[in-house]
Amino acid sequence: MALSKLDQYRRAVEITVDITGGKWKPLIIHYLLSGTKRFGKLKKLIGGVTQRSLTLQLRQLEANGIISRKVFAEVPPRVEYTLTALGLTLAPTLEAMKSWGEHYLASKHRKPKA
Amino acid sequence: MALSKLDQYRRAVEITVDITGGKWKPLIIHYLLSGTKRFGKLKKLIGGVTQRSLTLQLRQLEANGIISRKVFAEVPPRVEYTLTALGLTLAPTLEAMKSWGEHYLASKHRKPKA
Repeated sequence: MALSKLDQYRRAVEITVDITGGKWKPLIIHYLLSGTKRFGKLKKLIGGVTQRSLTLQLRQLEANGIISRKVFAEVPPRVEYTLTALGLTLAPTLEAMKSWGEHYLASKHRKPKA
Repeated sequence: MALSKLDQYRRAVEITVDITGGKWKPLIIHYLLSGTKRFGKLKKLIGGVTQRSLTLQLRQLEANGIISRKVFAEVPPRVEYTLTALGLTLAPTLEAMKSWGEHYLASKHRKPKA
């Protein structure tokens, strides 16, 4: 079934919101942009995130094809996360979203509204 | 309380997701980019949206300072919506989100994953 142009537009924006909108996802992607990271390193870099929450968000990003996960047969096991080619293409979009958010927050700060 | 750089980053992306992430919000903004519209016109342009749902999303956009609402004392009353200066600045960000979403959907289409 062909989607109308409008539905396509809405769906395209929505999918970006869905994929990037998790509480820790922008930060995960942000840190992986500078290279592959181990789980523990990501956890330390991000700070306030729990083990469970980070695991969940990493799984969702992996399921969406944004990151890849590699397990090394070591003791203790080493798990590394890397942005996929698709994940790398998110960089400019996230940057645009971050910039607009900053602009918004700054404008609210200048003219507080009830 | 000063936010850490990380918190600022997360908050900036999150606010953009919050403000643009409503089911009909990208479409509302999209249509208002071409100029002021009446409620009924927006409803017709968007299609599948209910009166209640459109009203709710317009109110949220108004509360966030993205659109302004003007009521004309006519019979029947005329209500018009216009993007604010702040709302206009969303255009390139929404465009980036739309483009990436299209890219994502196309890539999924090429390599279907379980």
